[in-house]
Amino acid sequence: MENRIHNFNPGPAALPLPVLEKIKDSFLNYQSTGMSITEISHRSKPFDDIINDAKMRTKRLLNLGDNYDVLFIQGGASLQFTMVPMNFLGDNAIADYVNTGTWSTKAIKEAGTLGKKVNVAGSSEDKNFSYIPKQLDLSADAAYVHITSNNTIKGTQWHEFPETNGVPIISDMSSDILSRPLDIQNFGLIYAGAQKNLGPAGVCMVIIRNDMLEKIPSNLPSMLKYTTFSDKNSLYNTPPCFAIYTVQLVLEWIEDTVGGLEKIHDINVQKANLLYNLMSDNGFYRGTAKPDSRSLMNVTFRLPSEDLEKQFVSEALENGLGGLKGHRSVGGCRASIYNACEMKSVEALVDFMKTFEKKNG
Amino acid sequence: MENRIHNFNPGPAALPLPVLEKIKDSFLNYQSTGMSITEISHRSKPFDDIINDAKMRTKRLLNLGDNYDVLFIQGGASLQFTMVPMNFLGDNAIADYVNTGTWSTKAIKEAGTLGKKVNVAGSSEDKNFSYIPKQLDLSADAAYVHITSNNTIKGTQWHEFPETNGVPIISDMSSDILSRPLDIQNFGLIYAGAQKNLGPAGVCMVIIRNDMLEKIPSNLPSMLKYTTFSDKNSLYNTPPCFAIYTVQLVLEWIEDTVGGLEKIHDINVQKANLLYNLMSDNGFYRGTAKPDSRSLMNVTFRLPSEDLEKQFVSEALENGLGGLKGHRSVGGCRASIYNACEMKSVEALVDFMKTFEKKNG
Repeated sequence: MENRIHNFNPGPAALPLPVLEKIKDSFLNYQSTGMSITEISHRSKPFDDIINDAKMRTKRLLNLGDNYDVLFIQGGASLQFTMVPMNFLGDNAIADYVNTGTWSTKAIKEAGTLGKKVNVAGSSEDKNFSYIPKQLDLSADAAYVHITSNNTIKGTQWHEFPETNGVPIISDMSSDILSRPLDIQNFGLIYAGAQKNLGPAGVCMVIIRNDMLEKIPSNLPSMLKYTTFSDKNSLYNTPPCFAIYTVQLVLEWIEDTVGGLEKIHDINVQKANLLYNLMSDNGFYRGTAKPDSRSLMNVTFRLPSEDLEKQFVSEALENGLGGLKGHRSVGGCRASIYNACEMKSVEALVDFMKTFEKKNG
Repeated sequence: MENRIHNFNPGPAALPLPVLEKIKDSFLNYQSTGMSITEISHRSKPFDDIINDAKMRTKRLLNLGDNYDVLFIQGGASLQFTMVPMNFLGDNAIADYVNTGTWSTKAIKEAGTLGKKVNVAGSSEDKNFSYIPKQLDLSADAAYVHITSNNTIKGTQWHEFPETNGVPIISDMSSDILSRPLDIQNFGLIYAGAQKNLGPAGVCMVIIRNDMLEKIPSNLPSMLKYTTFSDKNSLYNTPPCFAIYTVQLVLEWIEDTVGGLEKIHDINVQKANLLYNLMSDNGFYRGTAKPDSRSLMNVTFRLPSEDLEKQFVSEALENGLGGLKGHRSVGGCRASIYNACEMKSVEALVDFMKTFEKKNG
């Protein structure tokens, strides 16, 4: 019996146990190839089957039409902060960015580093990024509108996406992709570092609409243009095979074991509510995000003092509950409860929180 | 008992069995953390220990002084084709590139895509890249001299590096890094996709000299400048943790089990000689590389006909010898015998080749 903890890490994060067991069991001999998954060729039938299955499952889960492609790119969301403006923002064009904290701020900065023109169409900086801005000042002629669908650090999440009058939305969905059903049609591109809801660190999923591919200049470096990945089924060069394989298994788990995005969303809502129900404005546990902007993925909260927060995190770990420290830039506490975080883990956390409050409240 | 094959894949390639077993055994609970290696935080002590150990072992194995840093970057050697000129080649400067086939050709092309000036200082294109050019036409004022130390497709390898009069050499060593001792001092930067001699696909090791770091312009995208990785110990964003972990275990195996680069080089020479001894200009097995340029990593050869080559590859696989097909761009046969390919695998291949020749020669 493996002595595993309840893992509330913000990313890399918990993976479904059946996925880990499957990887472990076949690790020295993948599907009778006589090789580990880490040793097979990316140009072999077994790997083709993996990458194609991962793409098909993503398309089925999100109801993607033939006008969307699914790509696997290295470099995480951070490289996407550069690739997006490099591919879609001409020197005389402008893009709208909504700033909901750290990650959007970085995306805006990287567009600027390329010398591109950005309009910050909305921001919640005035209240420490504790909410999702509703009123946006969108440009008439923007090349795209960029948002971060979920902010892991501030614990906020877009619950309704903005109306952009046909301007493609580009979204960083690293921390909530495939955690809920999505109406994709207004999105031109979605990117998501895998290490929260999709798999291990080391691969970024990109979902791109065909008309976006047609806009990409041909004179970009091969590894920095989406067409390279789309033209070659993400096999222009050696891809991160193990990470893609794990993503495939996670997608299989979401689709075949959990039963799809409606189901996983229901569970995610239940998990989040268990935690948010413990919080109130003047209570022992105080949520940091505005209630209508609360994230279903990252539940951020404060205790009455920083000393109590430290004690909370360390006693939790002693009780087998890991990863509850808030991001170093904001302090406090955070429970990251992505798809793979089980209900029983959240229930164990709730029990601990009640006991801790009784002893220290 | 796992039914593993003798793996001669060109990359992703064989990994040392003790490394795979170690990963498997701890896969559900890494070092009593209660988490898989794929689930631990990249900002945790266990991961710090991994990345620091990988760096220190690389430094010890290559006798690197304090003036060299070791970085881990995503995107493979293919992204390095762009990063190298982006970081080190100013708009009015020129770089020398030696073209020894596919990978050098791509590196030259990507520098051109950025609008940079390249002098092809040597090429073996006249004889289908079957040799390493000895006479180079180096520029007096080059920013760097770029070479590909081993060509996986043509089966050639630099056995002596060029004299560049103080101009830093930058080398793609994806297919022979840590396969032999190296006198590092003339190298300004070395990059190596891990999936041949170092680990699984999904991480590229970069070894960089301090004076090179000082030349990098500050206005580059964060994920495309080496200083970002050097300043943050390769932890600016979430790194490919599993790939780095596997690299650490491979380095541990080279250093502690094999006994260092002199030892592994001796073994690599013995393995290659066993195969090259079967080849002659007019024999059944004909090596494609000029003898003085033959690679110790990729042994490329032809049989009397393409039909026999097909038969060779398929009968070999039936005998538990995999990955012997030549690259699709050149045809023929190829045995990739990187560090982790065991002597007993090469001996099994030699036996098979002798038998095959007797039956079909």
